[in-house]
Amino acid sequence: MDTPKIIKLQTQDSVLTIAENDNLPFVVKRIFWLDNIEPGEIRGEHAHKTSQQLLICLKGSLSINLENTSHKTYSFKLSNANEALYMPPMHWGKITYSEPSTVLSVASDEYDEADYIRDYQVFKSIDPQSRGRATEV
Amino acid sequence: MDTPKIIKLQTQDSVLTIAENDNLPFVVKRIFWLDNIEPGEIRGEHAHKTSQQLLICLKGSLSINLENTSHKTYSFKLSNANEALYMPPMHWGKITYSEPSTVLSVASDEYDEADYIRDYQVFKSIDPQSRGRATEV
Repeated sequence: MDTPKIIKLQTQDSVLTIAENDNLPFVVKRIFWLDNIEPGEIRGEHAHKTSQQLLICLKGSLSINLENTSHKTYSFKLSNANEALYMPPMHWGKITYSEPSTVLSVASDEYDEADYIRDYQVFKSIDPQSRGRATEV
Repeated sequence: MDTPKIIKLQTQDSVLTIAENDNLPFVVKRIFWLDNIEPGEIRGEHAHKTSQQLLICLKGSLSINLENTSHKTYSFKLSNANEALYMPPMHWGKITYSEPSTVLSVASDEYDEADYIRDYQVFKSIDPQSRGRATEV
């Protein structure tokens, strides 16, 4: 199972950061961003069965906790627009914002609600070897 | 020739904006962002022979002037994270920032220096029908 990790992105100067398919762990199919996030807001609280994601904090800062199906946990703090957190599939993520922040995420797949696990009890009950198949009908 | 235009992006709530290949005018091959842009900074000042781009202002605001090879000009102001400016190829762009801003751009092609026209005099001399081929060796 892949593990979450920080990826240093290519920069051109102190302002410009570049994320190109050639330099990323997957081909980008979906991009989304969150602006005007209020301090104290909590986001995430789901896992993906197959989709991989990169999370970049463009403004402000965030704390993220990730847990895999073996209940191993990872904690990261993001506050640098040149760093991306790689989030493998089958990791439950919880993001806490302590200041106004702007966040960018790029994903390996287009939106598919069937790829989401939104119930933490369901996630916790998944056999680490199954990669989420136990939750499928 | 395509013209520059504002595209309203899909939003999920007041915070989250989504850009997916299915809803964009091209398949995303490259993403880059600029943070800590200082007021008074000028960026752009080039054209692309074939690459298309979307420009999104996530924080702050910017003014952009675009000029095509027929010397028709377009002006836009961006200050909304839910709006993208579609920039066709063969448009000279000049971006002016009047406040601290964070900007996201997605492009239809990976980086290729040969796709850039960086000399305004060269750009102005291009036959509108040639789509930049006159500048190639």
